[in-house]
Amino acid sequence: MTSIREVQDMMANIYLSRDSRRGAEGTFRWLKEEVEELGEAMQKTDKTSLEDEFADVLAWLASLANVLENDLERATLRKYDYSCPKCASSPCECSHV
Amino acid sequence: MTSIREVQDMMANIYLSRDSRRGAEGTFRWLKEEVEELGEAMQKTDKTSLEDEFADVLAWLASLANVLENDLERATLRKYDYSCPKCASSPCECSHV
Repeated sequence: MTSIREVQDMMANIYLSRDSRRGAEGTFRWLKEEVEELGEAMQKTDKTSLEDEFADVLAWLASLANVLENDLERATLRKYDYSCPKCASSPCECSHV
Repeated sequence: MTSIREVQDMMANIYLSRDSRRGAEGTFRWLKEEVEELGEAMQKTDKTSLEDEFADVLAWLASLANVLENDLERATLRKYDYSCPKCASSPCECSHV
């Protein structure tokens, strides 16, 4: 099992130098591009390619968090503390879908 | 430290029932919406709001992976095995930025 923090640190080791040179706006544009590619992979039947695109979105999200000095793991557990932040239940009991 | 798998499982516990009813396309649209909100939060100075948006993008990415029965942790470690998948180095030595 690998923690979110370990993945974020791994991305910093591999990419932070170039991510910092590119900056937050450019890194965000890459994240959006990878989300588009994930959407395209959803339309196809190649499971490995879909898996790669999931990996890329998480990788670029971690890169952006590194550039902006944000802690993805802390952020996620602060907001989603084993229940829905809106209705405070698990499973979620909010009325909208 | 919390693993990616634990976060994906937590999201399944809270949201998989409604995520499944909404389906992959609808869940993907929510992911894109959350990425847009992250971009908007980057333009502001509120660090807590930015942190919340990072959490939301990861949460919706995990929801989408649940609907599509994809394992985010395995996907990420398969592609990013402590080095750049393109140049096989860490730090990345690819020529482009």
